[in-house]
Amino acid sequence: SPSKWHLAHTTWFFEEFFLRALSRHTALADTYRFLFNSYYETIGNRQAQSKRGLITRPAVAEVMSYRHEVDDAVIKALSNGVNAAMLEIIELGIHHEQQHQELFLTDILYTLAQNPLYPAYCTDNIQAPENISSIKKNMVNFVGGIEQIGHTGNDFGFDNEFPQHKVHLEPFQLASHLVTNAEWLAFIEDGGYRTPLLWLADGWKATQTEHWQMPMYWVNADGYKCMTLSGLQSINLNAPVTHISYFEADAYARWAGKRLPTEMEWEVAARTQPTQGNFAETERYQPQPVTNDNNQNTLTQMYGDVWQWTASPYIAYPRFKIRSGAVGEYNGKFMNGQYVLRGGSCASPRNHLRASYRNFFYPHQRWQFSGLRLAI
Amino acid sequence: SPSKWHLAHTTWFFEEFFLRALSRHTALADTYRFLFNSYYETIGNRQAQSKRGLITRPAVAEVMSYRHEVDDAVIKALSNGVNAAMLEIIELGIHHEQQHQELFLTDILYTLAQNPLYPAYCTDNIQAPENISSIKKNMVNFVGGIEQIGHTGNDFGFDNEFPQHKVHLEPFQLASHLVTNAEWLAFIEDGGYRTPLLWLADGWKATQTEHWQMPMYWVNADGYKCMTLSGLQSINLNAPVTHISYFEADAYARWAGKRLPTEMEWEVAARTQPTQGNFAETERYQPQPVTNDNNQNTLTQMYGDVWQWTASPYIAYPRFKIRSGAVGEYNGKFMNGQYVLRGGSCASPRNHLRASYRNFFYPHQRWQFSGLRLAI
Amino acid sequence: SPSKWHLAHTTWFFEEFFLRALSRHTALADTYRFLFNSYYETIGNRQAQSKRGLITRPAVAEVMSYRHEVDDAVIKALSNGVNAAMLEIIELGIHHEQQHQELFLTDILYTLAQNPLYPAYCTDNIQAPENISSIKKNMVNFVGGIEQIGHTGNDFGFDNEFPQHKVHLEPFQLASHLVTNAEWLAFIEDGGYRTPLLWLADGWKATQTEHWQMPMYWVNADGYKCMTLSGLQSINLNAPVTHISYFEADAYARWAGKRLPTEMEWEVAARTQPTQGNFAETERYQPQPVTNDNNQNTLTQMYGDVWQWTASPYIAYPRFKIRSGAVGEYNGKFMNGQYVLRGGSCASPRNHLRASYRNFFYPHQRWQFSGLRLAI
Amino acid sequence: SPSKWHLAHTTWFFEEFFLRALSRHTALADTYRFLFNSYYETIGNRQAQSKRGLITRPAVAEVMSYRHEVDDAVIKALSNGVNAAMLEIIELGIHHEQQHQELFLTDILYTLAQNPLYPAYCTDNIQAPENISSIKKNMVNFVGGIEQIGHTGNDFGFDNEFPQHKVHLEPFQLASHLVTNAEWLAFIEDGGYRTPLLWLADGWKATQTEHWQMPMYWVNADGYKCMTLSGLQSINLNAPVTHISYFEADAYARWAGKRLPTEMEWEVAARTQPTQGNFAETERYQPQPVTNDNNQNTLTQMYGDVWQWTASPYIAYPRFKIRSGAVGEYNGKFMNGQYVLRGGSCASPRNHLRASYRNFFYPHQRWQFSGLRLAI
Repeated sequence: SPSKWHLAHTTWFFEEFFLRALSRHTALADTYRFLFNSYYETIGNRQAQSKRGLITRPAVAEVMSYRHEVDDAVIKALSNGVNAAMLEIIELGIHHEQQHQELFLTDILYTLAQNPLYPAYCTDNIQAPENISSIKKNMVNFVGGIEQIGHTGNDFGFDNEFPQHKVHLEPFQLASHLVTNAEWLAFIEDGGYRTPLLWLADGWKATQTEHWQMPMYWVNADGYKCMTLSGLQSINLNAPVTHISYFEADAYARWAGKRLPTEMEWEVAARTQPTQGNFAETERYQPQPVTNDNNQNTLTQMYGDVWQWTASPYIAYPRFKIRSGAVGEYNGKFMNGQYVLRGGSCASPRNHLRASYRNFFYPHQRWQFSGLRLAI
Repeated sequence: SPSKWHLAHTTWFFEEFFLRALSRHTALADTYRFLFNSYYETIGNRQAQSKRGLITRPAVAEVMSYRHEVDDAVIKALSNGVNAAMLEIIELGIHHEQQHQELFLTDILYTLAQNPLYPAYCTDNIQAPENISSIKKNMVNFVGGIEQIGHTGNDFGFDNEFPQHKVHLEPFQLASHLVTNAEWLAFIEDGGYRTPLLWLADGWKATQTEHWQMPMYWVNADGYKCMTLSGLQSINLNAPVTHISYFEADAYARWAGKRLPTEMEWEVAARTQPTQGNFAETERYQPQPVTNDNNQNTLTQMYGDVWQWTASPYIAYPRFKIRSGAVGEYNGKFMNGQYVLRGGSCASPRNHLRASYRNFFYPHQRWQFSGLRLAI
Repeated sequence: SPSKWHLAHTTWFFEEFFLRALSRHTALADTYRFLFNSYYETIGNRQAQSKRGLITRPAVAEVMSYRHEVDDAVIKALSNGVNAAMLEIIELGIHHEQQHQELFLTDILYTLAQNPLYPAYCTDNIQAPENISSIKKNMVNFVGGIEQIGHTGNDFGFDNEFPQHKVHLEPFQLASHLVTNAEWLAFIEDGGYRTPLLWLADGWKATQTEHWQMPMYWVNADGYKCMTLSGLQSINLNAPVTHISYFEADAYARWAGKRLPTEMEWEVAARTQPTQGNFAETERYQPQPVTNDNNQNTLTQMYGDVWQWTASPYIAYPRFKIRSGAVGEYNGKFMNGQYVLRGGSCASPRNHLRASYRNFFYPHQRWQFSGLRLAI
Repeated sequence: SPSKWHLAHTTWFFEEFFLRALSRHTALADTYRFLFNSYYETIGNRQAQSKRGLITRPAVAEVMSYRHEVDDAVIKALSNGVNAAMLEIIELGIHHEQQHQELFLTDILYTLAQNPLYPAYCTDNIQAPENISSIKKNMVNFVGGIEQIGHTGNDFGFDNEFPQHKVHLEPFQLASHLVTNAEWLAFIEDGGYRTPLLWLADGWKATQTEHWQMPMYWVNADGYKCMTLSGLQSINLNAPVTHISYFEADAYARWAGKRLPTEMEWEVAARTQPTQGNFAETERYQPQPVTNDNNQNTLTQMYGDVWQWTASPYIAYPRFKIRSGAVGEYNGKFMNGQYVLRGGSCASPRNHLRASYRNFFYPHQRWQFSGLRLAI
C-alpha cells in the first residue's frame, strides 16, 4: 500500500469508529469511506487492495489536510468528554496507527527495492559493522509445566491476546541469540535452498515457484549485498538475518538440527525480560548485531530487531470472544493459515510491544522484518 | 487420481520400500517408479499429479498383473523370514493401502459427479430414509484438566500420532450428535452462505471464488438432491451433512453460536467409546441417520459416517521425530496449512481407525466425506 | 479430447442436425446432447472441454452401440428419401467426421506422449530412414498478378472457402520442398531458440513461458529423439519437421532470410498439383522424407505429410456469409487470432483435401502435424 | 504506465538512439537505460512493464531535469550538424513522442477511472451537448478495383506503412458517420451483450470473463454516465461511441447487419478527405457530435474523435523490411494477434496523422479512444 494510503486509512479509522459514532464525522467521510476502508465487511464496499496504488487523488496535501481536520474534530470531542467505550476506540485507534507506522516503513522498503537504482529512504543511520570476534551462543533452559498464557494486567491489549488461559509445556531450551546472517550464509552454502527434504511440502513448492535462493532483498552480484532503507548495503554478518519466510525459518531450523519455539514457549521466556531492544525509536531501521556479549546463559534480542517466527499457527485462544460491531473484524477473521511472530522489530514503536503481543503472517510472506530464534 | 493409479501406487509402495530394500524388486520397477511414486522426493522424479489422468498405459490388466507379481514376491520374501524393521514396512504398507481404499471411493465419486448423467457406482445399498420423529440432542460435559494425548499401547500408529504428551484442557462440552442435513438446510435458508461476518476472511474469499452455496455434490433443481456413489439421491434430512469444507464447518459453528472442538478435546471424548459405526464394511458408502436414539447424555456417531473437522491446525506433537529414509516423508512434510479431522467415515475400513488417528486436509477441500460435531 | 468423445461427438452431429430435424432422434438424444456438443451455443449448455477427460460413463461399448443406433436411423431415413438441404447436412457430417479422424490420431499422440513409458499406438509402420545423399532444393517462381481465390466447382467445400474472389499478388517464389528435421537442427544449433530478435514479441514470450527449445515431442537425451504414434523414434533427418507452432515457423523463416507464404500464394501454387502425398491412407502416421528427387523446379510435398503454416491470419473472405441455424457456427466464429494452414497431413484422409481447403490454429499450438515451406 | 515514465521514456529514446550513437550520452544514461527502455531486446534488460508503477524514484523534478539535459545535448549536437541517418532518428523520436502524448492522456484517464471519486484531469472543456434533431446517415459508394496502398510521397512514415503495393478491392460502401452512443444504447437494450451468436468465440469468452455489459468507463447508476478526462459526465447521445474493443465493434456490426471495413477500404476512402477533425489540439479530449450535417453522401469524422477499428489483422505489407539496429524493433515484432485502427482520435496530435497511418491494438483492449464506422 502507498504511504498516502496508510496516512489516510489510519485517520479514517478515527472518523469511522469514533466520529461517526458521535455523529460528528467530517464532510469527506462518505467519499473517503470507500477509498480508505481496509477490510471491514461491516462498513460496506471498498477499494480493492491491489488497486490502492492507482489512487492518484486525493493528493498528499489533501490527505494531510484530512488528517488535521479529523484530528481537530477528535480533540474537540475528547475535550467535551466521552464515555469509556469511546475512549477504548481512541486507544485502539492509536495502537492501530502504530501498526501502520511499521507497515509504512516496510512498504516503502518494498517499493524502493523494485527500483534498480536502489534509492535510500534515509542515509544518516549507517554505521560501520562492528567486529565482534565471536558471539557466545547458548541454549537457555526452561522447566515447562503449567503456565498462564495471554495478556495480564489492565493495560491495552488486542483481542487476540485474550483470554488468559493455562497450557502445559514440556521442558524446553531457547537459543540466547537470534540467527545471524553469517549462520544463514552457511545454510545457503550447504545447499539449504536446494535440499527438498529440509522443507515442508508447501515450502518446497514456494522455493521452486518463487525461485528463492536467499533472503528477500539480498542481491548476489560479486558477493551478497542487501537492499535496506539506507539503500544497497553490504551484509552485516553478525546482524540477525531478516526478510525470511516461515518456510525458510522452518527449513533452517531442521537443517540446524533444532526447531522453532512455540508462541507459548516464547511468551514464557520473554516475560523474564524487559521490553528493550532496537526499535523504531533508534531510527536505524535495520537489525543490529549484538555489541555487548558478556552475559552467559541470558536471552538477548528478545524484543526489537526482527519479528521471530514461531511454530504456532495463528488460532484463537480457548474461550476467545469476537467483539461486537465492526471492530470485531479486527483480528478474529484472519485466524487461518498464518503463523504467529513475536517480539517486534527495528520498525516497531517500542511501547507498542509486550510479551503477550501476537503478530501474524502467512508462511510465504517475507516483506516484514522477520527472522528467527532456535529452540530445542 | 484414477482408480488404476491407486491400484498401482499401493503396490509400488511394497516394491519400493520392501522388495527393493531386499534387492528383490520386479522387472517393472524402474519404469513404474516414475509413474506411481506419489510424492517421495527421496525416490526421485515422478509423474505430475495433474497428469495422472492422462496415463492410458499400462492398462488395468497390466496393473492387476503387476499387483499379483509384487504380491507373490512379497509373500515369498516373508515366508523366507525378514527382520523387524522390514515387518514394520509391511505393516505400514497395509495401512497405506487402507488409506487408498478410501481415496479410491472418494475419487470415483468425484469423477462420477462431473458427469451430467449422474451414473451410480453401486445401487444395491440404497435404503428408504427412516423417519425419526426427533433426535434428542444434548451437549455432553467433560471436565478438562491435564490429559495425555497421542497413541498408546503397542498397536500400529502413524508417526504423527506420536509421541504421547500432556496438554491442559479447559472444561468443555461436545454435541452428542453430528450436524445433520436438516440443520444444514436451516443454515442455508438463514443466508449462511451470504453473510460475510460468519466466515473467516479466507473462507469468505473461497465462497466468492468457488460460488459455494451448499455442500459439494448437492444439486438444487426443484429441491435439493445429492450426488452419491448410488447416483443422484434425495437428501436424507436426518443423516449427517457431508462434503463440506473446514471453512463451511467453521462458519456453521459460528452461526450456531458454538464452535468446533479441538482435536485434543475430541480425542479425550472418543477414548470413552468403542470403535463402532458406519464404516466401509457396511458397504453403504453414505452417512446414515441415527436409528437408535434412546440414550441421554451419550456421544453417538463418534466413529464412521463422516470425518469430523476439528479447530486444530495439523502440526507436530511436541518432540515429534521424522523417521529416517523415504518413509520419513509420510506425514511430517504436510504439517502446514491443513486442519485435523477425526473419527473416520463411511468409506474408511473399521480396523484402520482409533481414537488417536489424525487425518488432515486443507480448509477448502470438500471431496472427502467430511462433516462436523459442535462444541462449547 | 478422449477417443471415446470423438466417436460420440461425430455421431451426435448426425443425430442433432439430421435426425432431430426429421424428428427421428434416438432415445439417448437428450442426455448425450449435453455431453457431446462441442461448441454450439445454439444447441444449449454443454460439458466443458476441460472436463471431457473425466467422463468415464458412457463406456466405449455404449458409445459404439450409440453409433450403430444412429447409423441405422440415418440409413433408414435416407432410404425413405430426404430433400437436398438434408443431404447437405449428411455431406457436412461426413466431412466433419473426417476432421475428427485426424484429431482422434493427434489426441492419442498427445496422450501417449505424456506417458514416460512412451507407448506406441502402432508399430508395423516403422521404416528404416532412407539415405538420400542430398535433396535438390529450389525456389520455384510464380508471376503473381490478379488471381481467383476460393472454392471452385460443385464439389463439397466448407463455408470458409467461399466466396471466390479476386486478389492481386506480387511475383513470388515458393520452396520446392518442406523444411526438414536436418534444417531445423541447424536452427537449434545456431541458437535460434535463444535469439529474441528472430521472434515476434508474442512468440518470444511463448518460448520463455513454455520453455520451448525444440519441436513438441522431441526429447533430448543423448541426442534428439521424437515421440511418434510408433513410440519414441530417432529423428529422421530428411523428413519434414513437424509439431512446430506458427511462432517457431515464423522465427525459422526470419533466421533463414526468407518468409512464410501467404495462403493465397500457396493456393495459386497448389492448384498446379495433383492431391497426392503421404496421407492417413498410408497408415504411416508420420511425415516421410522425399524419396524420388529427380525433378528440378517442381513443387513436392504440397499435400500430406504436414500442414503448412501460412503467414495469413484466418479471416473471412470478402462477402463471406454465415449460414443460418446451428451449422452457421461451424467456422465463422473462430475467425480471430488464428493462422491458416494448408495442404493436409499424414493424419488427414486424402479425399478430405483440396487446394482451397483452409485449416486454422492459434499461433502457439503445436499438437497437430504442422510444419512449413519457405517463400520469398 | 505512469505519466513520469512517459516523460522519461521519450527522452531516453533520444539519448539511446541519437546521443549514444554520437557518443555524447549523459551521465544518467546507464541507470535510466534499465528503467526507461520499453521493449527493446537489443538494448538489454529493462524494468518489467507491470512494475513501472512502483518506480517512486527518480521523482518528477529529476525526470524534468533529465529532459532538459537531453534536450540541450540534442540541440547542441544538431547545431554542430549531423548526417541524414541521424536526422531520421530525430524525426522518428519526435513522432515517437507524439504517440506517447496520446498514451499519456489515455493512461491518465485509466488511472482516474479507478478512483471512485471520479476526479477530473481538466474541466474547462465541457460543453453542453448540442441537440441535433437527426443525423442524416448514408452509405457512401466506392467502386473498388486495383488500388495502391501504403505511404506515398517524401514525408515521414513509420516502417509499417511501407512499401506501397497493389491490392484488389471489391466494390464497397462506407457509412458517412461514426457509430454514436445512441446507436450503441440500442445495441445494449436489444440484448447485444447477452447474445452469443453475435460474437466471435474469443469475444464471447471475453464478455463472460470480463463481465462486459457496456463500453469501458460507462457507469450504470440511475442511467448511464461515462468517466472522461473531465470527470463523470452524462452520455452525449450524438457523440461517437468510444472505449470499445474490437470484439464489441465486430459484434455490433453483425447485429447491425453490416461489417467493419478493411484497412485498405478505409485508406482508399480517407485519401479523398483532408486531415481535419477533433484532435488533441481542440483540448476537448472527448469525441464530439457532428454539428454541421448538411452534406449528403459525404464522409465525415474520418480523422480524429475515435480510432476506427478495421477488420484487418495487423500484418506486414508485401515485401516489408525490418530496419537494421534497435529501431527495427519498432513495429514489426508486434505483427501478431492485433487489429489495425485508422484515423486518429481526440487525443492524437493532428500532424501525427495521415491516410496511410496504421495503429494497432489487441482485440480485447478498450482503454484507447476506439470506436467504429460500418461498411457493406
